[in-house]
Amino acid sequence: MRHLLSTRDLSRDEAIALLDVAEDMAAVQEREVKKLPTLRGRTVVNLFFEDSTRTRISFEAAAKRLSADVINFSAKGSSVSKGESLKDTAQTLQAMGADGVVIRHPSSGAPFTLATSGWIDAGVVNAGDGTHEHPTQALLDAFTMRRRLHGDASRGRDLDGVRVVVVGDILHSRVARSNVWLLETLGADVTLVAPPTLVPVDVSGWPATIEYDLDRALADGPDVVMMLRIQAERMHGAFFPNSREYARTWGLDDHRFAQLPETTMVMHPGPMNRGLEIAARAADSTQSTVREQVANGVSVRMAALYLLLSGERGEAR
Amino acid sequence: MRHLLSTRDLSRDEAIALLDVAEDMAAVQEREVKKLPTLRGRTVVNLFFEDSTRTRISFEAAAKRLSADVINFSAKGSSVSKGESLKDTAQTLQAMGADGVVIRHPSSGAPFTLATSGWIDAGVVNAGDGTHEHPTQALLDAFTMRRRLHGDASRGRDLDGVRVVVVGDILHSRVARSNVWLLETLGADVTLVAPPTLVPVDVSGWPATIEYDLDRALADGPDVVMMLRIQAERMHGAFFPNSREYARTWGLDDHRFAQLPETTMVMHPGPMNRGLEIAARAADSTQSTVREQVANGVSVRMAALYLLLSGERGEAR
Amino acid sequence: MRHLLSTRDLSRDEAIALLDVAEDMAAVQEREVKKLPTLRGRTVVNLFFEDSTRTRISFEAAAKRLSADVINFSAKGSSVSKGESLKDTAQTLQAMGADGVVIRHPSSGAPFTLATSGWIDAGVVNAGDGTHEHPTQALLDAFTMRRRLHGDASRGRDLDGVRVVVVGDILHSRVARSNVWLLETLGADVTLVAPPTLVPVDVSGWPATIEYDLDRALADGPDVVMMLRIQAERMHGAFFPNSREYARTWGLDDHRFAQLPETTMVMHPGPMNRGLEIAARAADSTQSTVREQVANGVSVRMAALYLLLSGERGEAR
Repeated sequence: MRHLLSTRDLSRDEAIALLDVAEDMAAVQEREVKKLPTLRGRTVVNLFFEDSTRTRISFEAAAKRLSADVINFSAKGSSVSKGESLKDTAQTLQAMGADGVVIRHPSSGAPFTLATSGWIDAGVVNAGDGTHEHPTQALLDAFTMRRRLHGDASRGRDLDGVRVVVVGDILHSRVARSNVWLLETLGADVTLVAPPTLVPVDVSGWPATIEYDLDRALADGPDVVMMLRIQAERMHGAFFPNSREYARTWGLDDHRFAQLPETTMVMHPGPMNRGLEIAARAADSTQSTVREQVANGVSVRMAALYLLLSGERGEAR
Repeated sequence: MRHLLSTRDLSRDEAIALLDVAEDMAAVQEREVKKLPTLRGRTVVNLFFEDSTRTRISFEAAAKRLSADVINFSAKGSSVSKGESLKDTAQTLQAMGADGVVIRHPSSGAPFTLATSGWIDAGVVNAGDGTHEHPTQALLDAFTMRRRLHGDASRGRDLDGVRVVVVGDILHSRVARSNVWLLETLGADVTLVAPPTLVPVDVSGWPATIEYDLDRALADGPDVVMMLRIQAERMHGAFFPNSREYARTWGLDDHRFAQLPETTMVMHPGPMNRGLEIAARAADSTQSTVREQVANGVSVRMAALYLLLSGERGEAR
Repeated sequence: MRHLLSTRDLSRDEAIALLDVAEDMAAVQEREVKKLPTLRGRTVVNLFFEDSTRTRISFEAAAKRLSADVINFSAKGSSVSKGESLKDTAQTLQAMGADGVVIRHPSSGAPFTLATSGWIDAGVVNAGDGTHEHPTQALLDAFTMRRRLHGDASRGRDLDGVRVVVVGDILHSRVARSNVWLLETLGADVTLVAPPTLVPVDVSGWPATIEYDLDRALADGPDVVMMLRIQAERMHGAFFPNSREYARTWGLDDHRFAQLPETTMVMHPGPMNRGLEIAARAADSTQSTVREQVANGVSVRMAALYLLLSGERGEAR
């Protein structure tokens, strides 16, 4: 892999290879010294044009456990605010010898531009761009599902036939988009559930079933329910008078959670609005994978940085 | 030690053991390469919900000299401001494999909650919580006193009979609280001097004498005078019309300083308001330990991180 | 060298020695593992009282490639805003064992004060102070010129007879000041071109020719044209109604660029205002050294940190 920009571009073999490397990285984190020398002397820049402490520190921990030097570049208060373009920033990082750039940007497509413009030789990892994609989130979600389903026998496996229901603000969610493409590639069956105003207009082209009734979507006990975070300001755009109303119609509340099979995984990309899109009982149950998702995030990001920056790949650049 | 949350919980033996390890750490800092490999592969997160550059970089330097990976997590601009609870943040850090969490928080008790809730296995160090405690500050103060008094013969010693006068805004000072408990444990005699409006209501339960007249408190030449930082906004709450008036009544001004024995140590946790609670002459005299306190802060924090995170302790988790 | 505060103080031999060490550092960055163990166990503090992400990350990358521990200290939100003086900050860094301090400050002279006050033993590098100096910028500019002119035969060479035209807001530019002094020391001939309102009053004392007509300054094909960044708010102080007017009178536009010899280097400290002080064609041409300047910045800063902090120099402190 040269870059990790979207899950839509990933082949089944590429995705499974990355998940298998992430298994190795998860093993590293069980060790007394949670560190590999693999990326010693390489520089990874966290280029964040939006705040996201959770994602930033997950990538920072991943890079440091591979012994890379990490430089955090928050675009706030930087020369970006003096009008410097993405091009100038990219060329600066290139000239400074960045081997990897982890970019979060409010504009969909910015990581693609960064990676393909020729401005930079570094491997680029999309850490979330606008409403487009957040590929490492989808990969850590898939990793989490695979581990729960297959345990130690996960290597080489895909998610054939796994039934996943994704619920919430699909329209604005890069997490949903990245999941839909990756899950399709790995053979899962995806159902999207959303208020009608929060469904993308082009959804008919997505490899997923659309459903507007949450209870119907959950009726036959899916393998996975993935609740998305709702932004308060979007709830109103969706014509919900208040959060209680949203929770009742679109939330995984106590009642709905109680009716799910005990084998159904409850996923959430975090941070959760307990009592809004997800009840505390569901969030903190043994069916919840929320903490595993965070832990797996470090392993998956280590795998991505390893595949992009180590060995011949690094030398070839 | 599992956590370092307050000095009130520390036994005499625990406190002395920590001060003795800090002696070893002070020696490391005299070496050409000021670094130990002890915490290689461990991750220390500086979780700061309040700004405090001085404390943060002291812990950061301490952790790096022990070869830990350090991740700074400022709660500003983080998902905390999107409504994420301390619990979610804690679980995120846990899942990412944080071995130690250094927390500063505006709410008294937050570090205790973090450490005892079961959310996290990491060792927790309280780096200041509300008006409650700031234990590493008190430990570095005690370390500084012990070194001035006993020099190379400090190991194993306590502060039996040392007379300490603490002056200023006792009410709002976590530094004062942590010092009172630790000094009592180590056998010192503590006198608190404050404007009546800046004395805590429960002070009768503290192991210290209260005095309202600074000159009387200093009359018999104490071993240590510790001046606290006064916040301008609190001066007015204490009915002082201006800082000149405060300095005259409660400050260690030139006159008072001149009357102290030459052996009296002048301490301040910094940053100092020269000319307000402390005259420049006192602050910069050879009796002042202000710079030693800062240097000792790194040694004491190295000791705390070492005791919490290294060896069997780390493996046992 | 003890500190690097200005280029005005540098002798020819010191400057050439630094540029020669920077050649070694540039070679390090061609290696598979771009890292030297030289500063292991040393602590470099980036003390930035002004935002400058580009300069900060250049120094951060330089220090990390020398294996130093790096602590970033942004004065925003720090105790500096609580009224802590530069002296207190310096003493804090001293006490914490900082071996090197890289300081950017809005006040001209602050790095000199920091270095010469006796507050601190650390080596001090001026990373830009007010309108005074920015010595590593001038050194990287000279390094870039020397490499373009002499390639592999650069070592030991100065810039004797090289004709350099510096264009723009000379009055407020620390980059211009540092370049003028260093270029003079290295034997270059400097012409300054600026709107009359943006020429310093003491310019008659500078070792440079002043010219008010850009076309005349460029007429005989200089070896180097260095365009300075113009701040929008200063354009108006210079009585230009708009940026189009500025670009036409003082910019390196397409027409002027086309008339330069193909051997003339086009330099800019970045970030560039394309279409204002420099046309995109000039900025992105093969004559442009903008990206080399950034890359060379890391090498030059590695050299400065190496000379200030390594070996006997470090031990002697």
